[in-house]
Amino acid sequence: MAWIGLDLGGTKVYGVVVDKGAIRAEAKRRTPTEGGPEAIIDCMAGVVADLGGTKRVKAIGVGAPGLIDRKRGVLRHAPNLVAWLDESPLGPPLSTKAGAVPVVLANDVEAGVLGEHRLGVARGREHVIGIWLGTGVGGGLVVRGEMYRGGHGLAGEIGHTIVHPGGRKCACGGLGHLEAYAGRRSMEQRARDEAAAGRHTMLVDLAGAERMRSGIFARALEAGDPLAVELMDEAIEAVAITVGSFNTFLDLDMIVIGGGMGIRLGAYLAPRIDDQARSLMFVPNHPVQIAPAELGDAAGAAGAALLAAGAH
Amino acid sequence: MAWIGLDLGGTKVYGVVVDKGAIRAEAKRRTPTEGGPEAIIDCMAGVVADLGGTKRVKAIGVGAPGLIDRKRGVLRHAPNLVAWLDESPLGPPLSTKAGAVPVVLANDVEAGVLGEHRLGVARGREHVIGIWLGTGVGGGLVVRGEMYRGGHGLAGEIGHTIVHPGGRKCACGGLGHLEAYAGRRSMEQRARDEAAAGRHTMLVDLAGAERMRSGIFARALEAGDPLAVELMDEAIEAVAITVGSFNTFLDLDMIVIGGGMGIRLGAYLAPRIDDQARSLMFVPNHPVQIAPAELGDAAGAAGAALLAAGAH
Repeated sequence: MAWIGLDLGGTKVYGVVVDKGAIRAEAKRRTPTEGGPEAIIDCMAGVVADLGGTKRVKAIGVGAPGLIDRKRGVLRHAPNLVAWLDESPLGPPLSTKAGAVPVVLANDVEAGVLGEHRLGVARGREHVIGIWLGTGVGGGLVVRGEMYRGGHGLAGEIGHTIVHPGGRKCACGGLGHLEAYAGRRSMEQRARDEAAAGRHTMLVDLAGAERMRSGIFARALEAGDPLAVELMDEAIEAVAITVGSFNTFLDLDMIVIGGGMGIRLGAYLAPRIDDQARSLMFVPNHPVQIAPAELGDAAGAAGAALLAAGAH
Repeated sequence: MAWIGLDLGGTKVYGVVVDKGAIRAEAKRRTPTEGGPEAIIDCMAGVVADLGGTKRVKAIGVGAPGLIDRKRGVLRHAPNLVAWLDESPLGPPLSTKAGAVPVVLANDVEAGVLGEHRLGVARGREHVIGIWLGTGVGGGLVVRGEMYRGGHGLAGEIGHTIVHPGGRKCACGGLGHLEAYAGRRSMEQRARDEAAAGRHTMLVDLAGAERMRSGIFARALEAGDPLAVELMDEAIEAVAITVGSFNTFLDLDMIVIGGGMGIRLGAYLAPRIDDQARSLMFVPNHPVQIAPAELGDAAGAAGAALLAAGAH
């Protein structure tokens, strides 16, 4: 039997078929930005069809970017999916449209970290942290080879690590959090504020009124745009502080840098984070490896399929 | 059968007998400050005799304050044991003097956290961090009900969490570590520096040329000594930042404040840490409990006995 995994993102729905512990097929479609939850669910069912349908599929796993109710299959709140409506069901209607196979909802970052742990760069590692740099910053932890969910299912919020007490304001209202320095949304806000204050930057030239995507940061960095470099340096420092502290306490085997920015800029970010984080660790030459995710956009979908396989 | 646990501290050797999952007897002696490792081992054997000897005892566990080689039973480095010599054997000679029962060495903080988890305030909790405030600051982590040692046996160094990047220098050379704000040695240094700069404080009046023990901080705090309050506020803030970040990522059931300062000042520290840490957590009203250790000086000895029971 096979399992389908879908990663429901703000810009695309990415799908994979996982069978015998490997990715067998991939497909993607653009996430609709209007038409409500029905349009989004239709799009997901379309990706399932692109993957060959559900004849040999035992279950579908969905990594969703927001607050989920696993039991009822409801995506409660998903600020990055503009067409979504709070508290709308996702699992049951997708199941109906996709041939009545069971649908399992999961957190998208948890799915991504699991994907990289089982099929990606962290294969076979016992103790792993994933830091997912995207619109915000999410995280996941593998302990003794198994995903760790915490005492109340709330683990993984590494974006709200306090890196600079009293520092820059985070979207959550807290001060000095990792996400306020290393989340794409916060970096975009900072770039636009600086531009509004008269500083010239390619970041705003390239983005215009559109979202300042990871690819735009990549192009500005390549061109040596000073503000892009400065913002990225602050992000790298904030991630390095987080990595230094967590690895000193948790003595990990690997730290994976993933998420949209991690995928696009991992080759730039990972060695710089590695370099700074090591100088902050208590144990010199600690054997932990700091590596960019290697499955790219497929990580979240693969992890969602594995979560579905664990449940069905 | 029973197990004996010894907590080898800079000022005293504390011993317990653990039988059927409970502490059955306790004894203590002052740690000699001269006479070399032999004097210290004689003192430990004396505590074993005070506890009734080893007739019914299957093994002795020792929580030691330093770098240990478990396999060879060597206490490699123990800066707080003035009479100790680096790289001296501890397990084999203690075993010989105590009736040839096996001796198991463990880290003292790990033993203390285990003691509080199995027999103390954190009984029955799944996911627990212990923060041991002593001369330095140590830590321990329980995941899924079991002690967590990390990928290379190096986990637990919570004292080297970066709470104020670029901040006060830690004994390890790092900047802005928790231990630089909340470790007794660092707080003593700060008090003496302030006194040398002309500031009056009871802390130095009470300590004179002797070590500024936790009891001295307790008396100065009670009397409202402004520097004692100030140092304690900084320590509380540093612990709260650590607790806020780690609980946001790890979603714990309980955080235990232990160690020499935690035992002596837990009733003062724990509610203040709780109050500040909660305001720094991502999830409001998180169900984690922040509590002072409850076994007092017996925690480390009890945990050492339990570690010996796990090995023999």
